[in-house]
Amino acid sequence: MEGEKALLWGGRFTGATDPLMVQFNASIGVDKRLFLEDIQGSQAYAKAIARVGLLTDDELQSIIDGLDKVLEEWNSGTFEIQKTDEDIHTANERRLKELIGAIAGKLHTGRSRNDQVSTDMRMWLYKASGRLQDFLKKLMAVFIERATVEVDILMPGYTHLQRAQVVRWSHWLLSHASSLSRDLQRLQQLQKRVNVLPLGSGAIAGNPFGIDRELLAKDLGFDGVSLNSMDSTGDRDIIAEFTFWGTLTMMHLSKWAEDLIIYSTKEFSFIHLSDAYSTGSSLMPQKKNPDSLELIRGKAGSVFGKCAGFLVTLKGLPSTYNKDLQEDKQGMFDTYDILSAVLQIATGVLTTLQVNACQTHGALSEDMLATDVAYYLVRKGVPFREAHGLAGKVVQLAESEKCSMSELPLGKLQSLSLSFDSDLANVWDYNHSVEQYTSAGGTSKESVMKQIENIKAGCGLV
Amino acid sequence: MEGEKALLWGGRFTGATDPLMVQFNASIGVDKRLFLEDIQGSQAYAKAIARVGLLTDDELQSIIDGLDKVLEEWNSGTFEIQKTDEDIHTANERRLKELIGAIAGKLHTGRSRNDQVSTDMRMWLYKASGRLQDFLKKLMAVFIERATVEVDILMPGYTHLQRAQVVRWSHWLLSHASSLSRDLQRLQQLQKRVNVLPLGSGAIAGNPFGIDRELLAKDLGFDGVSLNSMDSTGDRDIIAEFTFWGTLTMMHLSKWAEDLIIYSTKEFSFIHLSDAYSTGSSLMPQKKNPDSLELIRGKAGSVFGKCAGFLVTLKGLPSTYNKDLQEDKQGMFDTYDILSAVLQIATGVLTTLQVNACQTHGALSEDMLATDVAYYLVRKGVPFREAHGLAGKVVQLAESEKCSMSELPLGKLQSLSLSFDSDLANVWDYNHSVEQYTSAGGTSKESVMKQIENIKAGCGLV
Amino acid sequence: MEGEKALLWGGRFTGATDPLMVQFNASIGVDKRLFLEDIQGSQAYAKAIARVGLLTDDELQSIIDGLDKVLEEWNSGTFEIQKTDEDIHTANERRLKELIGAIAGKLHTGRSRNDQVSTDMRMWLYKASGRLQDFLKKLMAVFIERATVEVDILMPGYTHLQRAQVVRWSHWLLSHASSLSRDLQRLQQLQKRVNVLPLGSGAIAGNPFGIDRELLAKDLGFDGVSLNSMDSTGDRDIIAEFTFWGTLTMMHLSKWAEDLIIYSTKEFSFIHLSDAYSTGSSLMPQKKNPDSLELIRGKAGSVFGKCAGFLVTLKGLPSTYNKDLQEDKQGMFDTYDILSAVLQIATGVLTTLQVNACQTHGALSEDMLATDVAYYLVRKGVPFREAHGLAGKVVQLAESEKCSMSELPLGKLQSLSLSFDSDLANVWDYNHSVEQYTSAGGTSKESVMKQIENIKAGCGLV
Amino acid sequence: MEGEKALLWGGRFTGATDPLMVQFNASIGVDKRLFLEDIQGSQAYAKAIARVGLLTDDELQSIIDGLDKVLEEWNSGTFEIQKTDEDIHTANERRLKELIGAIAGKLHTGRSRNDQVSTDMRMWLYKASGRLQDFLKKLMAVFIERATVEVDILMPGYTHLQRAQVVRWSHWLLSHASSLSRDLQRLQQLQKRVNVLPLGSGAIAGNPFGIDRELLAKDLGFDGVSLNSMDSTGDRDIIAEFTFWGTLTMMHLSKWAEDLIIYSTKEFSFIHLSDAYSTGSSLMPQKKNPDSLELIRGKAGSVFGKCAGFLVTLKGLPSTYNKDLQEDKQGMFDTYDILSAVLQIATGVLTTLQVNACQTHGALSEDMLATDVAYYLVRKGVPFREAHGLAGKVVQLAESEKCSMSELPLGKLQSLSLSFDSDLANVWDYNHSVEQYTSAGGTSKESVMKQIENIKAGCGLV
Repeated sequence: MEGEKALLWGGRFTGATDPLMVQFNASIGVDKRLFLEDIQGSQAYAKAIARVGLLTDDELQSIIDGLDKVLEEWNSGTFEIQKTDEDIHTANERRLKELIGAIAGKLHTGRSRNDQVSTDMRMWLYKASGRLQDFLKKLMAVFIERATVEVDILMPGYTHLQRAQVVRWSHWLLSHASSLSRDLQRLQQLQKRVNVLPLGSGAIAGNPFGIDRELLAKDLGFDGVSLNSMDSTGDRDIIAEFTFWGTLTMMHLSKWAEDLIIYSTKEFSFIHLSDAYSTGSSLMPQKKNPDSLELIRGKAGSVFGKCAGFLVTLKGLPSTYNKDLQEDKQGMFDTYDILSAVLQIATGVLTTLQVNACQTHGALSEDMLATDVAYYLVRKGVPFREAHGLAGKVVQLAESEKCSMSELPLGKLQSLSLSFDSDLANVWDYNHSVEQYTSAGGTSKESVMKQIENIKAGCGLV
Repeated sequence: MEGEKALLWGGRFTGATDPLMVQFNASIGVDKRLFLEDIQGSQAYAKAIARVGLLTDDELQSIIDGLDKVLEEWNSGTFEIQKTDEDIHTANERRLKELIGAIAGKLHTGRSRNDQVSTDMRMWLYKASGRLQDFLKKLMAVFIERATVEVDILMPGYTHLQRAQVVRWSHWLLSHASSLSRDLQRLQQLQKRVNVLPLGSGAIAGNPFGIDRELLAKDLGFDGVSLNSMDSTGDRDIIAEFTFWGTLTMMHLSKWAEDLIIYSTKEFSFIHLSDAYSTGSSLMPQKKNPDSLELIRGKAGSVFGKCAGFLVTLKGLPSTYNKDLQEDKQGMFDTYDILSAVLQIATGVLTTLQVNACQTHGALSEDMLATDVAYYLVRKGVPFREAHGLAGKVVQLAESEKCSMSELPLGKLQSLSLSFDSDLANVWDYNHSVEQYTSAGGTSKESVMKQIENIKAGCGLV
Repeated sequence: MEGEKALLWGGRFTGATDPLMVQFNASIGVDKRLFLEDIQGSQAYAKAIARVGLLTDDELQSIIDGLDKVLEEWNSGTFEIQKTDEDIHTANERRLKELIGAIAGKLHTGRSRNDQVSTDMRMWLYKASGRLQDFLKKLMAVFIERATVEVDILMPGYTHLQRAQVVRWSHWLLSHASSLSRDLQRLQQLQKRVNVLPLGSGAIAGNPFGIDRELLAKDLGFDGVSLNSMDSTGDRDIIAEFTFWGTLTMMHLSKWAEDLIIYSTKEFSFIHLSDAYSTGSSLMPQKKNPDSLELIRGKAGSVFGKCAGFLVTLKGLPSTYNKDLQEDKQGMFDTYDILSAVLQIATGVLTTLQVNACQTHGALSEDMLATDVAYYLVRKGVPFREAHGLAGKVVQLAESEKCSMSELPLGKLQSLSLSFDSDLANVWDYNHSVEQYTSAGGTSKESVMKQIENIKAGCGLV
Repeated sequence: MEGEKALLWGGRFTGATDPLMVQFNASIGVDKRLFLEDIQGSQAYAKAIARVGLLTDDELQSIIDGLDKVLEEWNSGTFEIQKTDEDIHTANERRLKELIGAIAGKLHTGRSRNDQVSTDMRMWLYKASGRLQDFLKKLMAVFIERATVEVDILMPGYTHLQRAQVVRWSHWLLSHASSLSRDLQRLQQLQKRVNVLPLGSGAIAGNPFGIDRELLAKDLGFDGVSLNSMDSTGDRDIIAEFTFWGTLTMMHLSKWAEDLIIYSTKEFSFIHLSDAYSTGSSLMPQKKNPDSLELIRGKAGSVFGKCAGFLVTLKGLPSTYNKDLQEDKQGMFDTYDILSAVLQIATGVLTTLQVNACQTHGALSEDMLATDVAYYLVRKGVPFREAHGLAGKVVQLAESEKCSMSELPLGKLQSLSLSFDSDLANVWDYNHSVEQYTSAGGTSKESVMKQIENIKAGCGLV
C-alpha cells in the first residue's frame, strides 16, 4: 500500500533506500578523525569486559592485536573506508572483523555508540586542549619577552580611541597577555571537565555486566567517571563550553588585532608588520595589507558561529541521545583548527613586528598630561573635582593663547589658581607621568616588571 | 634589525614567509568552487575592455579561447592547482597566461579582485537560489498533493502540545506549506538583490577606462549595476541575507520535523516513517529511529551558526574591502549544501511516510469538542464568555459522572443551562466539528481545498 | 495525595498558586504597549461578528462605544491595570465588561488570544515600520545633501584600513547611503508581509461563524488574509525578519560609525564631531569622546541579540501556538526603540559634524597614485600585469632615491620603461585621478552626481 | 561656520545639545540598580586614599557618613534622580556634594568611572552568583529528594524519542540533577573570576597616588586585584561568561522542560502538572497548558540572546574602555533576573508535579527488552553482534506470530538458537531488567542510590 500511495504523489522513492539519505546520515567523513581514540577506547573496553569474564585471555589478545593492525592501517594511510561504514565506530569494527573474524562481535558487548562516541570525543578534546594551552603559553611568552625588552618605549594610551594618558608600550602588551591568562585558566578548568569518562553508560541505562568503570577510566587516563548514564550519553556541555572558550579567546585576539590594524595605518604608523604576515594588492602596487590580523579578526566570527550554531542545535532537544547531536564534531574540530592556526599566526606576527618608537613617542602630546596637571593640584591640596576643572581651563587657555600648556607663563596659570608653582615644570615630562602609576597593575616601570612576574607565575611560564 | 630583534624572543621566523600563514591566507580550497563563474565573468570583462579599445579583436579572441580551455580543464578534472594559486582568480589567470602568454596580463586591466570575487559570488548565488526554489517547490508540491488526496483524515490539532481542536490532517500539512510559501517569496526577493553587478567597481574608486557597466551586466545576465563602488566592493548583505533566509527556512523545517518526531513516537503513532529515512540501533534491535528528521532539526543549528558567525565577522569592520570578508564563501556554500540536501530529504520523507488514520481518528476525544459546546450555546444566543464557562462545567460534570459528555442526559445539561436541547447531539460528530470552520484559512473541507488553490497560485505551482 | 506528597519534599507550595508564577506568566508589563491596536482590532472584530448576526446593532454600538472609553482611559493615563490582568487582551475585555456589562462577553466569540495577539502585533509593527522608513529617509537625505554640497572634497579611500586610492568625500558618503537604500527596500518588502491579517484563525482551526475575513482585513487596513489558521496562529516570521532587518541595518550604521570613530582620532583628524554628540571624561579634562558613535556601534550587538535570541526561542518548537512565543514582543519593541533612536541620533551626528578638508587633502600621498601610474602605462599599451609591476618599481625607486615619485627624473623612469613620457606629469594631480572613474558608480564628479540622482529616485527621496 | 553649514542641510540641531542624545547616552535607568555597590566601593576607596594622606580623618568620616545618608535615601526610596545624573556614579557623587559640600570632590581622586563601574558590577555579580547557587541547590535538592522517595517507579527510557530501555524514574530525575551539578561547578569557578578587584586602575594607566590595592580588595571582600590596568578597565569577560553560563544552564532546564511537556501530553500522560503551574485557554474550556515549562523553554532563547548580543558588542572593539561597553549591564541584570525566576519556578514545578506510575509502568512493553534478550544470549556465550541479530529475529518472530515475545514457545526460539533455555523467562521481568545495570551511573537501585550520594557530596548538599 505504501508503494501504491507513493505513486499518487509521484515520488522518486520506492521504499528502499535514498542514496542522498545514506550520505546525509553518514558521519564518517567527519568523525574518521577520531580513529586513534576510537581504537584506544575499544582496546580499554575489551580489557574491561575481559575482567568480568566476557572475553577469554586469547579473545582479548586477538581483539587488541587486531585493533593495533587497524590502527596501523590508519596511520599508514591504507585503511579503506567502505560505503557501508556509516561512522568511525562501524568502520573500525567492520575492519576488525575482517581481520580476526567473529570474535570481533564480542567487542561491543554492553556498549553503545552513544557512550562510545562521547568517549572518543573526550579523549580527543583532552589532548587538543593540551596542545592549545601550549600554543597559548608560547604566545604569552612572546608578549612577556617583548614587554621585558621594550619596557622603555612610551606610547599614547587610548580610550574611546582618543589619546588618553601616556603609557608604556609594554603595559599595552601586557594588557593583552592578561586577557590571555584568563583564557588559559578557563581552558584548564574546562579540560578537567572534559576528562570524565562516559564509557559504561551504554545507550541510556548503564552497563549490565558489572564492569569496573573507575578502573576503565584509569586505563584511559580519565580523572573519573560520569555520574548518570542517561545524562552522560546526551551530554554535550563540553562542546558548548569549548566553542565558547574559543569564541572568547578569539574576541581577545580580535581586540589585539584591531589595535594593531589601527596602529599599522599610515596615520598612526606605530608598528610595522613583517612581510611574512602582510600581503600586497592585485591592483595597487604600493599597498601592504595586514591580512594576517584581519583574518584573525574575521575568524572570531566563524568561531562564534560554531558556538552559537551548536547551542541552537541543543535547544529544544529532549534528554538523552538524539541524532541532532551528530552536529557536535564539526564544531569541535573547526574550533580547534582555527584556534590552533590563529594562536601560531599571532605568535608569528607578534614575534616579527617592529614597533616604531620614534612614532609612538612623537604621538605623545601635552594635552595628554591634563590629568597630570589635575593631579599636581591634588597634591597641593585642591579637591579633585576642582583640580579637574582647573586643568580643563589650562587646556583651554593654551588653546586660546595658541601655545602649548608648558609654554604658558606661571603668572597666567596662577590667575587660575595660586596652587600653581614653578615645580609644575616636572609635569611636562612624559617619563615622570608614567612613573606616577606605582600601584599594582599600573604603568610605572616597577609595576610593569611586577606584572610580568605575576603573569609568569600565574600561568606557569617561569 | 628586524632579524636581530626577532632573535631576542627566539621566534621561528626569519622575516621571510611563514608556511602556516601562506595556508591561512589562501582561499583556493574554498573558492575554487567558483571556477565557472570566475571564467564567465572574465570573458565578459574582456569584452567590456575590448569595447573601449583596451584589447584588439585578436587579443579578445585569444583570451576568450584561452579561458574556454581553462574551463575545460576544470570540467574534466585536469586543472592542477599550484601552491602559489592563492585563490581562484589567481589560479585562472596564472593558467591563462601559461596557455596564451603575456596577453593574459591585459585581462585584469581596471579590475580588482575586490569587484571580481563579489561578481563571481553573485553569479553563483543567483543560480544556487534558483535551484533551491526548485527544491522548495517540489517539496511544496508533495504537501499539496497529499493534502488533496488525504483530505478526509481527521486528527487532533494541538496547541501547547495539548489536544485542542479537531482538524484535518490536510490542514496540518498545509500549515507547513504555508510557512514554506513565505520562504519561497523571500528567496525570490533576495535573488533579485543578488542579481546586481559589482564588476566595474575596481578596488574602491570605480573603473577608470569608461567601460559600459550596464552592457556588461546585460552580457552576464544581471538585472542592473551596483550604485557605488566603495559600497559595492565591501557589500556582503547578500551573504547575511542568504544565511538568514536559510536559517528561517530551517526553523520551519525543524518545526515540521519536530511535529513528525512526536507523531512517530509509540505513544502518538500517527505516522510511520519509511525505512529509507529511519535507522536502527547498534544496541537495541527493536529500535527504529527518525534520524532523517532529527538531522533536519539539528542542522537548523548549523545553518544558524553560519548566519550568526558571518554577522559577527561583519561587526566592527570599517567600510570597503577588508580581508575579514574572506570568511563569506564558506557560509554561503555550507548554507546552500545543507538546504539543498535537507529540502530533498524532506521531500523524500514526506513522500514516503504513511499516516495512520485509525490512530489519528482514535486520538480524537470528546473533550476536544468543549469549544463546540460553547459555540452551540453561542448559536442559541448565550454570550461567549458565559458559554465558555458553561462548557467548562459540562466537562467537569462528565468527569464527576465518570461518563463522556455525549452520555450526559439532557436533563442534567439543562440544569446547567436551558439553552441545551436535543440538537446538541450533532456536536458530538467530529466531522461536524471541522465543517464549521468555513471562513478563509479554516479547516472545513471547502476551505482546505481553497487553501490548496491559493498556495498553488501564489507560488506558481499550478 | 498531591498535598501529602508535596510535604515529602517540603515545598513552599500547596497546590494553589505561586505568586512568582503569576508574575512569570503575565505579559501585561510588556504587551500593554499594544493597547490601541488591541482596541481597534476588537472594534473591527465586533463589526465582523455583527455582520454574521452574532451581535445586534445595539450590542455592536455598545461594544464600540465601550472600547472607545477604554481607549480614552489608556490615552489619558487613567486605565488601571489589575492584578488579574494577565495581558492586554484580558485587561481590555475586563474593563469593557465593567463599563458595559455582560454584552462584553460576546466580543470574544470565535476568537482566541492566539489570533488576537498576532493581529495586534502586526498592526503595531506595520506602523512602526512606516516610522522607521521615515527616519531612514531623513538620514539618507542628509547623506545626499552633504554629498551634493561637499562634492569637491577629496580624501584617501581605504581598503584594509590602508590608504588605497583617492576618492571624493561625497563618494564615501554615498557608499553608506547605498547600504541604507537596501535596508529601506528590505523594510518595505517586510512591511508588506507584516500586513497580512491573522484574525479569524481562532486558536487553531479557523473561524466557525463564517465571518468574512477579507472584509475584516479591509476594515483594519490589511492587504490580505493569512492562508492557513494553524500556521497563522504560530507564525512569528515577521519578528524574526524584523529583528534581522534591524541587525543588518545596525551593521551598516556600525560600519559608518567605525569609519567616523577612526576619522575622528587625533591621528586622522578628518572630521570633528559636534559637542552635542560627544562627551568628556570624568578623569581626563582634555578628552572628547565619540560616545554617540560608540553607542551606535555597541547597540548593533544588542539588536543582534534580539534576533538571535528569538530564533533560539523558535528552534525546536512544534507547530501552532506555544507559550514560548510570548518572548516575541520584547524583541520587537526593543528593536524598534533602538533603531528609532539610532537613526535619529545618526541623523544628528551627520548633520552637525564638520569635515576637515585641509586634513583629508593633506592625507593624500603620491603612493596612492601608484595604480594611476599603472593605468598611465596601460593607456600606452602596456599589459596591465606588466604595468602593475612597473608601477611597483617606481614606488621602490622613489623610496630608494628618497624622493617622491613625481620628483623622479624622466630618464630614470624611462630606464624602467620607455613608455614613460612627459605627459606623466598629469598623473600627479589628485583631481585628475578621481576624474578618471567615470563609469557608473565611480568617484568622478559626474558619476557621483549621477549616484545621487539614482539613490533619490530609487528611494522616493525626490 | 558649523552653524552656517548646518543650515545647508537644514538640521534640527544648533550645535548645542540634542535631548534624544542625552537620553541615549544616559545609563542611570539601568545602572541605578548598583547603588549599594557604588556606595560601598566609594567608602572603601575613600579609606584607601585617606591611607595615603589624600584625606584627613575628618574628611574621610564626612564622606563615609555622607555616603551612608545617600544609601539611606536609596533604601527608603527617597533618592531623587536629577536630569543631569548621567549614571549611578554621577548621581551618588552629586548627592554627596549636596549633603557634605566641596569635600565630596576629593572622593574621585585618582579614580575613573572606568574602574569604578567595573568594581560595582563585580561586587553585584559576586552576590548575585551566590544567590543563584542557592536557587540551584534548592532545585537539585528536590530532584534528589524525589529520586530517593520514588526510586521504585519504572518508566520507558527514550532515545531519539523512541522507547529504548526500561529505567527508573529516579534515574531520569538524576540525569537532570547531573547536568545541573556541572552548572553549579561552572558558576562557582566563574564567581572566583568575578571576585578580582579592578579599582585602582584609573582610566587606563593605573593609580598615581600609590594606594594599596591589595588592602582595598580585602576591605571590599575581593580575593585579589586585577593584573593590568589597561586590560582591567576594558575587561568584560565576566559578562560574556555569566551570560554564557546562564545560556547553558537554560539549555539544561529547557531539556528538562521539553521532557516534561512531552510527558504531560494526553498521549504520554506520565505526569500531571500542578494547577499552580498550568493555565487554561481563553477559547477551549478543557485545556490545561504547561505554560510554566514552555516559558522556561522559551526563555532559553532570551538568555542566549543576551550572551550572543554582548559578544557581538565586544567584537571588533579596540582595547581599553569604549562606550560600547555600556551595553554590558542590561545583559547581566536580565540574565540574573531570568535565571533567578526560572530556577524558582522550576523548583515549584518539580515539587508539585505528580508522576503517574500506573501510566509509566503501563508504557513498558516487551520490545524494550530486546536488548535484554541479546544480553541473555551473551551470558550464554554468544558473541554480542550475533546475539543482537538473534534478538532482532525474536522481535520479528513475535510480530509474525502476532503474539508477545514472552508468549513464543521455547521450541520456536530454539529454532533460532539453541542457547535459548527456560531461564529466558526472567528476562520478561522489568525489574530484573533495570537491576542488571549495577555499574556506576546505571539504573539499578543501588547504583541510583549511590548517584544520589555522589551528587550530594559533589555539590555540598549533604
